[in-house]
Amino acid sequence: MKLYEGLKVVEFTTNIAGPTVGQWLAEYGAEVIHIERPVIGDDSRAYPPLVNGISIKYCTLNHGKKSVILDLKDPDGNKIARELCKDADIVLESTRPGVMDRLGLGYEAMHELNPRLIYCSVSAWGQTGPYAHRPGYDLIAQGASSIMYYNGDEETGPVKIFTEIGDQCGGLAGFAAVNAALYYRERTGLGQHVDISLVRVLASMSVKLDDLRILHKKTEKQGNQGSPLLCPYGVFKCPDGNWIIIAASNNALAFQFFRVIGREDLISDPRFETNVKRVEHQKILAPIMYEWFDKMGTIDNIEKALLEGGVPCSRVYSYEDVDKDPHYHEAGWFTDIPMPEEMTDLKARRIVSSPFGFSEMSPEYIPTKGFGAWNHEIIGELGYTPEQIDELQEKWKQAMAKN
Amino acid sequence: MKLYEGLKVVEFTTNIAGPTVGQWLAEYGAEVIHIERPVIGDDSRAYPPLVNGISIKYCTLNHGKKSVILDLKDPDGNKIARELCKDADIVLESTRPGVMDRLGLGYEAMHELNPRLIYCSVSAWGQTGPYAHRPGYDLIAQGASSIMYYNGDEETGPVKIFTEIGDQCGGLAGFAAVNAALYYRERTGLGQHVDISLVRVLASMSVKLDDLRILHKKTEKQGNQGSPLLCPYGVFKCPDGNWIIIAASNNALAFQFFRVIGREDLISDPRFETNVKRVEHQKILAPIMYEWFDKMGTIDNIEKALLEGGVPCSRVYSYEDVDKDPHYHEAGWFTDIPMPEEMTDLKARRIVSSPFGFSEMSPEYIPTKGFGAWNHEIIGELGYTPEQIDELQEKWKQAMAKN
Repeated sequence: MKLYEGLKVVEFTTNIAGPTVGQWLAEYGAEVIHIERPVIGDDSRAYPPLVNGISIKYCTLNHGKKSVILDLKDPDGNKIARELCKDADIVLESTRPGVMDRLGLGYEAMHELNPRLIYCSVSAWGQTGPYAHRPGYDLIAQGASSIMYYNGDEETGPVKIFTEIGDQCGGLAGFAAVNAALYYRERTGLGQHVDISLVRVLASMSVKLDDLRILHKKTEKQGNQGSPLLCPYGVFKCPDGNWIIIAASNNALAFQFFRVIGREDLISDPRFETNVKRVEHQKILAPIMYEWFDKMGTIDNIEKALLEGGVPCSRVYSYEDVDKDPHYHEAGWFTDIPMPEEMTDLKARRIVSSPFGFSEMSPEYIPTKGFGAWNHEIIGELGYTPEQIDELQEKWKQAMAKN
Repeated sequence: MKLYEGLKVVEFTTNIAGPTVGQWLAEYGAEVIHIERPVIGDDSRAYPPLVNGISIKYCTLNHGKKSVILDLKDPDGNKIARELCKDADIVLESTRPGVMDRLGLGYEAMHELNPRLIYCSVSAWGQTGPYAHRPGYDLIAQGASSIMYYNGDEETGPVKIFTEIGDQCGGLAGFAAVNAALYYRERTGLGQHVDISLVRVLASMSVKLDDLRILHKKTEKQGNQGSPLLCPYGVFKCPDGNWIIIAASNNALAFQFFRVIGREDLISDPRFETNVKRVEHQKILAPIMYEWFDKMGTIDNIEKALLEGGVPCSRVYSYEDVDKDPHYHEAGWFTDIPMPEEMTDLKARRIVSSPFGFSEMSPEYIPTKGFGAWNHEIIGELGYTPEQIDELQEKWKQAMAKN
């Protein structure tokens, strides 16, 4: 049995965070109906790069879903949406708070229609509070959560995280919450509303372990080399321009590191004999480390010596490093997501896929079909004739053109 | 009914990622028995700062759990662990791959004992593959996943993320997977193994949306101001030294931004009339933006003008900014986690708590008790007398002293 076998999901989402939740539900067996607005569709359809006019990113985030075009502002389109939600198990939406309510598709209305429904909203600032109506994107979640502030050093100022970490963590939290709600429904028969805020998810990660405020001290930026907690624990530049991470997080590992760099004398040096003292004297230790890096010359030599010595370390991987790393391959972390036929030459797009590592459930990867490819089948199941469906699509297209 | 009412969790975890999974299970009603090694306990008990000898971080990650001291290498301790797992619903462990197997507490052995058991392993590199045995910490997951590489600009090199993003995302993925496994068990009666790797979780986020490799192009670092996808979309320094994020992600918002900065003329400038063209000419746009920032002088003025103009923006919050932000307060994002009595003066520690936003289920926050405070109750339930339990504890303590 597939994990979500028999579950029906209706998705009113766009961009990255919301679609990520639906993507995993589809991979593990749910029927996911992705409602898209006429003409434009999901915003991610315009994300570059396009291949034969189709966005690779859109396909990566929406494989296995059924694209259905509806104009929710039109009474006919709105009615169809309500009918689809009536017997759905899960609704996902990532519109600006208030929009779904104004469309008559908000949680209260849907709950009345279908009390077993799990209704998951994904937004920047959540459904309540003074900024709830504010638009938000990943970068704003990074900034407003405090997760960006402490990256870098005094010279750089805050450094943004290149990956869309707010979207990704919002998607992951939404997926976790939907699963918890499914388990709860299995036990009680009750659906519920799940309110995911990208800012809140990142803030819960960033604020959780800052204890200095409690002691009325200010957290300072540490840069790459420094750590307020551990030493040696940081990111260091090798003479050949590559970067090595060293994480010797207790006495045994730190002393082993001293042995590897040929400085056993430091083990009995009172400045380095405990972690607390090493943290205190980390600026004295850094040049000693660089002396050894210089002697070793290349990251290959440095990494080899550290690994052989049992010191936790890693180079800083680029995408190219990931692509060729034997562990990624042998552990089976890569998946080739099949791309739609229309892309012709691009048969598949390789990603590091679903990270959940279930022993009993395997994800399935089904390519996306075209924009609105499921209009006839899904709307037809509600009793509409092909002619009626075509007429509605034409009406909605023209309504969009007028806006 | 509480979400996890009646569920028994046995946790062999330490540090941050593994305990995070157990923390949420405890908050929503599971009985979580946290097995700790004699004398030292969970490594996070040594995380500074300590208050009356107790780590605030430990309490933040383990509230509501029952601490039980066991020496798993001792046959008596090992037997007790097996007995606890025999009727458990979930086992969480974050030891080095292979360790639990050698202790006779690995997935295969536990599954034979208890086929309904959900067994979640959290590690750096996962349970299989050539690096599985390597030790790993958050920083190594950041580096080996490629999530660190692209932060910053050419001058800075890779910039580490200050927050323990690998631990936090690993915990979140583990929690999602355990919930999915619970739902699956509810439907099929079967337990399973969940294999969470911190590197894999971050890599799945980082590698997912890099499509340039497919087109045989190399992804370049963009720094704070730049974006390969959108313009204006970045982090900018205000004249007063504060940082503002602007995320004008489509034509309407970009044109609105031009109006706000008094440069309506740019709307019809062919260099800025579409997003693709703005991205292409972002280096020309930057000085125009800074001209306006200079005129406005302070972040207060800049933010006010942008918000009033409907341009998505945010300042980069520090922890102090989070503490005083009205939205965080009014949306109810803060929770005061009660601290153990032994801390005397520190009654509670404020965090941004569980980010799941369930309408029907509320987390409960119960303070941790002392190290091994539940030894007698939990081991006693298995039929051991108080005297036997005290003897075992003494034996294990002495065994640790010999190591």
